[in-house]
Amino acid sequence: MELDKFFNPRTIAVIGASHSKGKVGHDVFSNLLKEKKKVYAVNPNAKSILGEPSYSSVLDIKADIDLAVIAIPAKLVPKALEECGQKKITAAVIISSGFAEAGNKALETETLETAKKNNIRLLGPNCLGVIVPRINMNASFFNNMPDKGGITFISQSGALGVAMLDWAIKQRLGLSAFVSMGNASDIDFADMINYFEKDNDTKAICLYMESLKDGRKFLEATKDCKKPIIVLKAGRTAAGQKAAATHTAALATEDRVYDGAFKQHRLIRVNTLYQLFEIAQYFVYGHAPKGKRGLIITNAGGPGVLASDGFEREGIEITKIDEVKEELNKVLPAQWSKNNPIDIVGDALPDRYKAVFDVLKNKRFYDFVLCILTPQTMTEPHEVAELFVKFYKETDVPCFGCFMGGDSISTAKRILRENHITNFVEPDYAAKVISKMVKK
Amino acid sequence: MELDKFFNPRTIAVIGASHSKGKVGHDVFSNLLKEKKKVYAVNPNAKSILGEPSYSSVLDIKADIDLAVIAIPAKLVPKALEECGQKKITAAVIISSGFAEAGNKALETETLETAKKNNIRLLGPNCLGVIVPRINMNASFFNNMPDKGGITFISQSGALGVAMLDWAIKQRLGLSAFVSMGNASDIDFADMINYFEKDNDTKAICLYMESLKDGRKFLEATKDCKKPIIVLKAGRTAAGQKAAATHTAALATEDRVYDGAFKQHRLIRVNTLYQLFEIAQYFVYGHAPKGKRGLIITNAGGPGVLASDGFEREGIEITKIDEVKEELNKVLPAQWSKNNPIDIVGDALPDRYKAVFDVLKNKRFYDFVLCILTPQTMTEPHEVAELFVKFYKETDVPCFGCFMGGDSISTAKRILRENHITNFVEPDYAAKVISKMVKK
Repeated sequence: MELDKFFNPRTIAVIGASHSKGKVGHDVFSNLLKEKKKVYAVNPNAKSILGEPSYSSVLDIKADIDLAVIAIPAKLVPKALEECGQKKITAAVIISSGFAEAGNKALETETLETAKKNNIRLLGPNCLGVIVPRINMNASFFNNMPDKGGITFISQSGALGVAMLDWAIKQRLGLSAFVSMGNASDIDFADMINYFEKDNDTKAICLYMESLKDGRKFLEATKDCKKPIIVLKAGRTAAGQKAAATHTAALATEDRVYDGAFKQHRLIRVNTLYQLFEIAQYFVYGHAPKGKRGLIITNAGGPGVLASDGFEREGIEITKIDEVKEELNKVLPAQWSKNNPIDIVGDALPDRYKAVFDVLKNKRFYDFVLCILTPQTMTEPHEVAELFVKFYKETDVPCFGCFMGGDSISTAKRILRENHITNFVEPDYAAKVISKMVKK
Repeated sequence: MELDKFFNPRTIAVIGASHSKGKVGHDVFSNLLKEKKKVYAVNPNAKSILGEPSYSSVLDIKADIDLAVIAIPAKLVPKALEECGQKKITAAVIISSGFAEAGNKALETETLETAKKNNIRLLGPNCLGVIVPRINMNASFFNNMPDKGGITFISQSGALGVAMLDWAIKQRLGLSAFVSMGNASDIDFADMINYFEKDNDTKAICLYMESLKDGRKFLEATKDCKKPIIVLKAGRTAAGQKAAATHTAALATEDRVYDGAFKQHRLIRVNTLYQLFEIAQYFVYGHAPKGKRGLIITNAGGPGVLASDGFEREGIEITKIDEVKEELNKVLPAQWSKNNPIDIVGDALPDRYKAVFDVLKNKRFYDFVLCILTPQTMTEPHEVAELFVKFYKETDVPCFGCFMGGDSISTAKRILRENHITNFVEPDYAAKVISKMVKK
């Protein structure tokens, strides 16, 4: 495919590679050297960089180059692109800033026109770069590599990209790709959606968006996209749009236009960065709920009430449990709630959770389970976590945890996470996130 | 004061003390033994418990007893209270369950009447107990001790209490007191507010509430309360009320009645447990904003946009910065935003944050500062954190952090936390929490 050279290049030239630590051209080149594929340094003022020979121009490199990564002063970019064209390079990531975002629209136009004339597709300018964990490629100046996984994160803000990559690494969240859009003078969200829709590793696409230049193209791309798209669109309010205008120099479009477009093609719109990834995770593992009938199991009444409040507010159905009431009567103490939330009472040992899971496991009157636990003296949170994981694996029902507390539940939380069950810090937040999935 | 004996007793008798691990009577007695004051075991079936002599009845103890903690089967409680009365005990925590919450209203009424007849005030029944970190008193079956501090947490759910105590310990959140209300047959929220309003250690009162029996009394107590009260009221929706009815057997009251009452007396109503404590913290340290004029400083445009969205949505004013624009022009690069959010641009080193803090420090056109940082290669998050702390200490302006990322910002987060500046995971959440304070 046309854009393959951005995400799976055999050879890369870093135009503006540098041996000065702290310079973007140094960081990008150094990051790319960590992988096995062939990387070339281009810098007329150096003979060698980080032990590799340095070329005066891409034209001096003998091998074919699939991808150029450009980190030189903005005004030199058009000339570099001319040379890329002569070298038959068709893909360039422009990391350099100093274009439209700095008031220099003419230079951005000139850059884009040079690229078009030379049959080069551009990512950027003014972007952080591209990372593809599966092939260990870091064509960016972010100095770390996330785990490989199924989420492709496309960010219009490089700075937010950095923060979220840093966080993803700490959380061991797996990514199929990270793409920083920068000014998106050529390649835009629509192009990326079209590309990653066909990428086998990508199971969910997350967008952080501030503005769209071509709404029609975006709608066309999202129209029949088979993969879930989760979007955080900043500039939802007038104040946000004003801040965004200062920041990106893009024209503000009324938020309801975006909102309508997202709804039309069933994109999942979220308000926070964490929701973006938490929701994407469930699609990656194929375990997003298929309907909105929720079942709550809890060993504590209070969190059950809070979960019910959250479910109702967010439009999740608290499904009726008539089908299993008799069976549950047999395995639960008399004080159990006789209703959904299934309150199995505070003195529950793990076996009581197990008894409920056993009753539920061949039933299909619910679309997902939220399992709440508060660490009473007699509870064994890690055992309950293991039983819940077993239930999840045996039934393939979408499962969510809400084990609440501090050190008492740390092992349980780890067990859930390792088995791809999200544990929410409290019921209200669980409702917020789950509702985004079920309303899709 | 009348209720002092619950929170500062010189002598305590544990009626139902036990040597069987896992029994509530064992855990309470064992927790109380960890402190220095005198604790007596009462259990007719034992000679000694955990190395202490065991008495058949409180009447056998020679010393005066300030507080009885009762953990015996429900049906034996009235007789135990009669004996407490003869012993002139005026304060009893009834941990035992099996009263109204288990359908046994008659027994609860009998218990309350026995207590009244004998001039005993009751906490509970069906509660977790009381913890006062300052005097190292743990009269509960929660087996750990939170740090001492300024937050008094009064919970109608023991299970939620456990989860939040466990979490508070991990977060090193300081408490002045923890009180589990249980069925609140005698002492209720109003009594507790009246008491803790006069407690010197308590700087903020947090309530987790499911129902009120006496709304008028509650309003009377909150009316002139000088201390901030933050409340999470469960059962906000019909579904939540239904779940609460199952759980507490309390009558549902329409939420708008509660909401109106809270607003009338300027209680801060929150939706989540974490907000409860995050907001309380600011009052503890006396640094809740006094007005709604917010100032945002950021090294990244995207989060600035998200913060603006959040501020506008939540009714926080994004204050004009005309007063300092000229001064900032002198110390910031040409691309700075010229507006609030003050975007100091992604290549900012700590000195650029410092320059802004220096310009702001003698100005008073804003009520609080939200400082956003994304970890760019050149940023030194811990240095920025230290500068922000210095600004906070020099100016006494309410300050909030939003340092975003993973390991790159962990030291910075620790520095902020140690200096009582909350760091929010992302701008949207910061807006939600701050707005609760400024709208009070």
